[in-house]
Amino acid sequence: MAQFDMPLPDLERYAPEIEEPDDFDDFWAGTLAEARTFDAAPAVERVDTGLTQVLVDDVTFPGFGGHPVKAWLTRPAHADGDLPVVVEYLGYGGGRGLPYDHLQWAAAGYAHLVMDTRGQGSGWGAGGGTPDPVGSGPASPGFMTRGVLDPHEHYYRRVFTDGVRAVDAVRAIAGLDPERVAVTGGSQGGGITIAVAGLVPDVVAAMPDVPFLCHYRRAVSITDAMPYGEITKYLSVHRGPEVEAQVWRTFSYLDGVSFARRARTPGLFSTALMDATCPPSTVYAAYNGWAAGQADVAREIDVYPYNMHEGGGDYRFPRKLEWLGATL
Amino acid sequence: MAQFDMPLPDLERYAPEIEEPDDFDDFWAGTLAEARTFDAAPAVERVDTGLTQVLVDDVTFPGFGGHPVKAWLTRPAHADGDLPVVVEYLGYGGGRGLPYDHLQWAAAGYAHLVMDTRGQGSGWGAGGGTPDPVGSGPASPGFMTRGVLDPHEHYYRRVFTDGVRAVDAVRAIAGLDPERVAVTGGSQGGGITIAVAGLVPDVVAAMPDVPFLCHYRRAVSITDAMPYGEITKYLSVHRGPEVEAQVWRTFSYLDGVSFARRARTPGLFSTALMDATCPPSTVYAAYNGWAAGQADVAREIDVYPYNMHEGGGDYRFPRKLEWLGATL
Amino acid sequence: MAQFDMPLPDLERYAPEIEEPDDFDDFWAGTLAEARTFDAAPAVERVDTGLTQVLVDDVTFPGFGGHPVKAWLTRPAHADGDLPVVVEYLGYGGGRGLPYDHLQWAAAGYAHLVMDTRGQGSGWGAGGGTPDPVGSGPASPGFMTRGVLDPHEHYYRRVFTDGVRAVDAVRAIAGLDPERVAVTGGSQGGGITIAVAGLVPDVVAAMPDVPFLCHYRRAVSITDAMPYGEITKYLSVHRGPEVEAQVWRTFSYLDGVSFARRARTPGLFSTALMDATCPPSTVYAAYNGWAAGQADVAREIDVYPYNMHEGGGDYRFPRKLEWLGATL
Amino acid sequence: MAQFDMPLPDLERYAPEIEEPDDFDDFWAGTLAEARTFDAAPAVERVDTGLTQVLVDDVTFPGFGGHPVKAWLTRPAHADGDLPVVVEYLGYGGGRGLPYDHLQWAAAGYAHLVMDTRGQGSGWGAGGGTPDPVGSGPASPGFMTRGVLDPHEHYYRRVFTDGVRAVDAVRAIAGLDPERVAVTGGSQGGGITIAVAGLVPDVVAAMPDVPFLCHYRRAVSITDAMPYGEITKYLSVHRGPEVEAQVWRTFSYLDGVSFARRARTPGLFSTALMDATCPPSTVYAAYNGWAAGQADVAREIDVYPYNMHEGGGDYRFPRKLEWLGATL
Amino acid sequence: MAQFDMPLPDLERYAPEIEEPDDFDDFWAGTLAEARTFDAAPAVERVDTGLTQVLVDDVTFPGFGGHPVKAWLTRPAHADGDLPVVVEYLGYGGGRGLPYDHLQWAAAGYAHLVMDTRGQGSGWGAGGGTPDPVGSGPASPGFMTRGVLDPHEHYYRRVFTDGVRAVDAVRAIAGLDPERVAVTGGSQGGGITIAVAGLVPDVVAAMPDVPFLCHYRRAVSITDAMPYGEITKYLSVHRGPEVEAQVWRTFSYLDGVSFARRARTPGLFSTALMDATCPPSTVYAAYNGWAAGQADVAREIDVYPYNMHEGGGDYRFPRKLEWLGATL
Amino acid sequence: MAQFDMPLPDLERYAPEIEEPDDFDDFWAGTLAEARTFDAAPAVERVDTGLTQVLVDDVTFPGFGGHPVKAWLTRPAHADGDLPVVVEYLGYGGGRGLPYDHLQWAAAGYAHLVMDTRGQGSGWGAGGGTPDPVGSGPASPGFMTRGVLDPHEHYYRRVFTDGVRAVDAVRAIAGLDPERVAVTGGSQGGGITIAVAGLVPDVVAAMPDVPFLCHYRRAVSITDAMPYGEITKYLSVHRGPEVEAQVWRTFSYLDGVSFARRARTPGLFSTALMDATCPPSTVYAAYNGWAAGQADVAREIDVYPYNMHEGGGDYRFPRKLEWLGATL
Repeated sequence: MAQFDMPLPDLERYAPEIEEPDDFDDFWAGTLAEARTFDAAPAVERVDTGLTQVLVDDVTFPGFGGHPVKAWLTRPAHADGDLPVVVEYLGYGGGRGLPYDHLQWAAAGYAHLVMDTRGQGSGWGAGGGTPDPVGSGPASPGFMTRGVLDPHEHYYRRVFTDGVRAVDAVRAIAGLDPERVAVTGGSQGGGITIAVAGLVPDVVAAMPDVPFLCHYRRAVSITDAMPYGEITKYLSVHRGPEVEAQVWRTFSYLDGVSFARRARTPGLFSTALMDATCPPSTVYAAYNGWAAGQADVAREIDVYPYNMHEGGGDYRFPRKLEWLGATL
Repeated sequence: MAQFDMPLPDLERYAPEIEEPDDFDDFWAGTLAEARTFDAAPAVERVDTGLTQVLVDDVTFPGFGGHPVKAWLTRPAHADGDLPVVVEYLGYGGGRGLPYDHLQWAAAGYAHLVMDTRGQGSGWGAGGGTPDPVGSGPASPGFMTRGVLDPHEHYYRRVFTDGVRAVDAVRAIAGLDPERVAVTGGSQGGGITIAVAGLVPDVVAAMPDVPFLCHYRRAVSITDAMPYGEITKYLSVHRGPEVEAQVWRTFSYLDGVSFARRARTPGLFSTALMDATCPPSTVYAAYNGWAAGQADVAREIDVYPYNMHEGGGDYRFPRKLEWLGATL
Repeated sequence: MAQFDMPLPDLERYAPEIEEPDDFDDFWAGTLAEARTFDAAPAVERVDTGLTQVLVDDVTFPGFGGHPVKAWLTRPAHADGDLPVVVEYLGYGGGRGLPYDHLQWAAAGYAHLVMDTRGQGSGWGAGGGTPDPVGSGPASPGFMTRGVLDPHEHYYRRVFTDGVRAVDAVRAIAGLDPERVAVTGGSQGGGITIAVAGLVPDVVAAMPDVPFLCHYRRAVSITDAMPYGEITKYLSVHRGPEVEAQVWRTFSYLDGVSFARRARTPGLFSTALMDATCPPSTVYAAYNGWAAGQADVAREIDVYPYNMHEGGGDYRFPRKLEWLGATL
Repeated sequence: MAQFDMPLPDLERYAPEIEEPDDFDDFWAGTLAEARTFDAAPAVERVDTGLTQVLVDDVTFPGFGGHPVKAWLTRPAHADGDLPVVVEYLGYGGGRGLPYDHLQWAAAGYAHLVMDTRGQGSGWGAGGGTPDPVGSGPASPGFMTRGVLDPHEHYYRRVFTDGVRAVDAVRAIAGLDPERVAVTGGSQGGGITIAVAGLVPDVVAAMPDVPFLCHYRRAVSITDAMPYGEITKYLSVHRGPEVEAQVWRTFSYLDGVSFARRARTPGLFSTALMDATCPPSTVYAAYNGWAAGQADVAREIDVYPYNMHEGGGDYRFPRKLEWLGATL
Repeated sequence: MAQFDMPLPDLERYAPEIEEPDDFDDFWAGTLAEARTFDAAPAVERVDTGLTQVLVDDVTFPGFGGHPVKAWLTRPAHADGDLPVVVEYLGYGGGRGLPYDHLQWAAAGYAHLVMDTRGQGSGWGAGGGTPDPVGSGPASPGFMTRGVLDPHEHYYRRVFTDGVRAVDAVRAIAGLDPERVAVTGGSQGGGITIAVAGLVPDVVAAMPDVPFLCHYRRAVSITDAMPYGEITKYLSVHRGPEVEAQVWRTFSYLDGVSFARRARTPGLFSTALMDATCPPSTVYAAYNGWAAGQADVAREIDVYPYNMHEGGGDYRFPRKLEWLGATL
Repeated sequence: MAQFDMPLPDLERYAPEIEEPDDFDDFWAGTLAEARTFDAAPAVERVDTGLTQVLVDDVTFPGFGGHPVKAWLTRPAHADGDLPVVVEYLGYGGGRGLPYDHLQWAAAGYAHLVMDTRGQGSGWGAGGGTPDPVGSGPASPGFMTRGVLDPHEHYYRRVFTDGVRAVDAVRAIAGLDPERVAVTGGSQGGGITIAVAGLVPDVVAAMPDVPFLCHYRRAVSITDAMPYGEITKYLSVHRGPEVEAQVWRTFSYLDGVSFARRARTPGLFSTALMDATCPPSTVYAAYNGWAAGQADVAREIDVYPYNMHEGGGDYRFPRKLEWLGATL
């Protein structure tokens, strides 16, 4: 059915209990500490793009394990002073592509860094350039179940760490204002946005659109769409309560709901009521938990009643531009 | 099958005879003359977009029948002298959307005008704003068969005229260089590009990507994909040789192959060998006829062997930027 | 799921509040008054069909705006006295086709007029012959959203008016009994049937099958099937609460539930429990509102538990023949 | 691809060698002789339909094995003298349905008998009423492979015999002219039409539309559409050259190409160039063989270039009415 | 949706009232008595398979009506004493195939008989060899509605009887232990398993996996998947309350829920929560009714939360091997 | 179309030129030499399966890079002398599953080792247990393009090496005859079989079924089915002649056609004419090149004209059992 998830009033109240391990914070503190031991400065190379109004740098920074992660940094050719920065994470399967595809924030006077998602970037668009040098046990096609039997091995432990390190990287680049770094992204990029906001509480704003990677267990029970469906496929082959328990335990270290609770920065979400890829109840589970217990942290959510996973689409940029301007 | 059309060497030689009516040039001369009797200057209204590096104007110009046609004009905030202009036409079903979606050419120092396609803009993207105030006889869903029984009534007579009038409009706007107007577009936008290049021989360059609206009859015989399939659907209901003859006669006034022959400006095409929407043989039929008999008119075509209708995708902009820079 | 809408007992009680504008009756009174200023008599031309038992006339009558609307009138070759008449409206996308496809009512001793739906008739069947000379703003492919931002401009304002004028037309044709005019149709034709019954209270009977065009808002929330899905598509592109409010306001002038309440003639409905195109709850919303407050107006509904949108199919004609015979 | 089979000029010349067993004629002479030993007169019961212009009889006649076969006989209520008769056979999966669905020929002054296809009639429409009391070995879902290992056991041996016995039956019913019996049908009904024309050379005309059951072997090699695909499915499970040889041998007794060669009556065919269900080359294989060696036997074929299996659709009745009138 | 049926806690309590005719037991007692009048001993022919560790017999036994039914009997080449036997029934559309596909139970020291399902075996796999010599009235493609208007004529009356006679057969074969016969099967084979367990209370164990043929009426209301969907198709054509009542009455003699209640042997079920072919609520309806009123009869059910109709797949054999070993 | 590739007579002659690098043999000699430096003996652990007639060992052997690769070894419980061995490789996406699924060869008196395909085993079946500890650059979902820019990095370099090391492993296990090791597998397993036969010329027989991984370039041009389509997807994103050239160069080290030419052992192939996954021309390209220049090396191919990728299915085991018995 079209609006297949809960009715909107129920969504607005939806605050499920989810499994959260006791050592969640230790797990992530350790992970980030280890990653930050690889503390090389980001490599920043100016690129000749033919563009006259926008400066483009090809950035390489050390991510999880010190692995090199690629990003494009764009900024206006005509600017004064240190620029506020928007760090953007990408949707599932895509890569940073070409710098010509990321000009909006620069046109609005911001610096913008778009980070590759390691190993991704051959599914759509113009390609990614960042390997994931870590192998895995048997996994269903895609990335969701790589390392699914151990949270230390899981693919998204590496990706979320890359996301944090991207913020670290922009804070080290000349001409950018380390006090004014916002994070954003759609779908998988929205999930990473939430994770980074939970792990780096002093980013100035978080703007996740139709975020993925939230409340996995509910997602799997109400939709068979990919990529949540990769988990279903894995569990449909690796049957049995032990495997199932371990899979959910692994994801309990990676759930956007838990990250959202730890956020301490204003949040602007969006969701779509016909979105079977990232069902609205999974988005609201994170949104309703945002900055748990901190009533003074602003949050807003835009609801698109007639959209599927494309959500607000092109309408999101001006909306976020205005909101971020007001927030900074 | 994957590469379902002719092998590439055959494509490179493919130069089919197509039906072209004796009064083709008269038909279009009359059409344009009549349209130009509606000679109001384009309305150009500056829009507050929040962008700091790009100026945006909301343009309304008189199209076919003097009907108001909407467009976005973008240009760099920091520029000297009259700017070269790229006029862009859109793919089937989309509208001009929001100005934030059209920043590439401005970032490269060009003015850029993107024209709504009348009546379209509710199929994908962020919407169009241009009505088509002309009704039609029974037509299959979509635009291909509106007015299909009479070339004077056909929808694309109006659209191609709008395309010509868009060039007229930018030539009348202050700050733009009327001698350096190029045209471009993908799919339907590529078809309009070819038509405008055939009707306005002094545009400085034409850059159609995976163009639609070429060699309709072959298209219908080798693919059942939409929107060429709208013609099939029409003829599947309105059966009989008389209707069929009239339909093909109508399209003989609207065929990209005939427009391409009349072009007198350098052309940069692209096509994809797995493109079932705009099969490569229909593209080559136009490409191989480009500027017929004018060996000195440059033309190039980029072939994407592994792509469907997305063709070169994001790779097209830098390719066109470089080619256009060299051509101007 | 198979029977995806409400359980039957709930359907039987389903009487939702729907938005109805205060000036609903004025809107339609004005619309019909204006249409009736085009008061030419219907043109009736006898057609040589090769049939020996049925007389066929090609009828053209003035519809909305006085635009010519085509219809086939069939009646038995052997008949005495003025005939009762069944006016039939067509399903979405089809046209009146050929007169050979409409022989049932004539074979049963009735006159039968089947009206083209303007602009339709190229989607299936044997074609329509009635243009819709009115253009529109951007609309998703199909007819549902043509003029959707203003009830005066909406496509179905014209079609419902044509439907009323078809009744006016048969009442002016010799040999037909103006006191015994019934209306019927399936799907879109059922929606028009309900509208005409609400606007022309003195038709003698209304027989809508699996009617479309009822309770649009619920339809859009529970099914993504076309053509209701055209509204979803429109709203998915033209995002935002203002557009949404205007769209629903426009449809509030066109809702079968409001027309049904105004009916004053016996009604025979049908619905199917697996019908995702015209979900049973939207049909019951109209059925349960039929002749609101008039307990003496007979109504019946036949429920097909195992059918999709085909509903009762061929079983409907004998059922309606018997019911209508008993009603007249 | 859209027009996926041979180009039309090749189709017009296509006259393949097909396997035909030496005892083909003996097989069928024996089959019919045996069936005619069940020589009960057809039961003809007048039905009260509510129709005033058409008389309807519920006919039961002895088919293969003397099994009762149901049919509807319709004729004009107002008629003089013995009527010419059109016997019609049905498409795959359907049944005779309700008599209200078969009024065209009666409206044109003909008697019309529509025969159930044994065992079918639960796939679409309003149902059939004729059992097939004969079981079979393992068969893929459907009817094509019931008894496929022995031509004596094959389902279509029974059906074609029923078709012949339907002609015998109408020749025995009062008020019908036994000298003027034509046969027609679409798809499966077209295949039966060809078979009956080959087995009963003195029918006065045969009008098969988009006929099925012709040149099975080519069909299976160029299309995977059902129902030819049932043969593919059977052979995909029952693998091996012996089974394959037996299957093709069985069908060699049942091939429309062989029946067509034996026809001695004028034939009006139709085919559609986008018909993947009954590909045009299989139709032309029969058409080009029609009345082999009898140059004076008239034949015509109507080609629908833009249609799939619906072929000429509603346009067929007036075309056949005119052609049959000229032929009689 | 993914887990589309009831939540697991509701499933565990689900015990619906279903229609059960008063003469259910008489119907089946009579049916079996009549079948057992065909009391020929099973024919057992040793087959040369090239296998050295497993002995294979080609078994033919008299089923319903004494019709010959084929089966493979496999047993270990190295064994002492009379062997316990597992009788297995097959999923819908398949046949016994080749003996090489049934080696698991023999490898574990059991005799194993796999029974053809009459008329089936051309849909997938390596083929069946058992005809169903009984014809039927019109039926939708497949087996579900053959004879659906009379329980005496229904296809599954014959199949269930064959299933009982298979148990009778193995009890008559030398080297097999007639006291230790278990029954099993998946999907259709699970449905037959339940029926046989209800009709032959002294089998020692029953192991139905994802069983089909249980609570037909609910199945049809919540899924449109085949083969339950064959019933829907039949009722969608043969419309009306009388036909519907008769269809459900016929199935009331064939419902796994009623058979389950009569079982008196331990049962091991399995079901999958994403199984739209045999929805879990229909499985639980039988499971919760197993051995009604006999609290001492053991039953277990394994639930696969992330599987569709494949259920436990390859994991079932070791699970059943262990459970059966403990049960015997 | 059904039999969409070349006609059979053309297939039988099809011997395309394919790109083969000069250092092909050096590349593989170096690869195997390096792998064999990890020369630990295979770990062989007896498993308690509940089976009485078959002995099962859980085998772990060092594959590429010395990485542990899992396999099941089954053999008859009752056997004398060293057993001949069949090594089997698996189809794409599956894992070794449970030992109960691999009993056929043991039942026939052979030892049988089924090797996990590293990283696979979560797509279907009962799971794999072998990680691929090597990461990769961006790749389309699946395994085909992992490391596609460098033959040293490509996934199948590792897998083919694992395949060779599996043969090495069985030759080191007691009770198995190192002189009588045959290799087999279907689809991906067939591709590995061919590779191993080309790299280990003294295996005694090779039996690839519907092999994958042959003539990649033709495959991509004639089918869009996965997994060959993963290459298409990669090239559709990573556009341009340089990338394309590198991709094809990488595959030139991995092409079954080149391995087939180097085979020196009898080969039994199978292919299916409707197989769009591994089109028959790609299979024949390898088959026709088998043991190039060695006329005395026996080869046979079984053709299944009516099958898709399932090919000969269950019929393959007895065919291979008989052929292998005759070959040994």
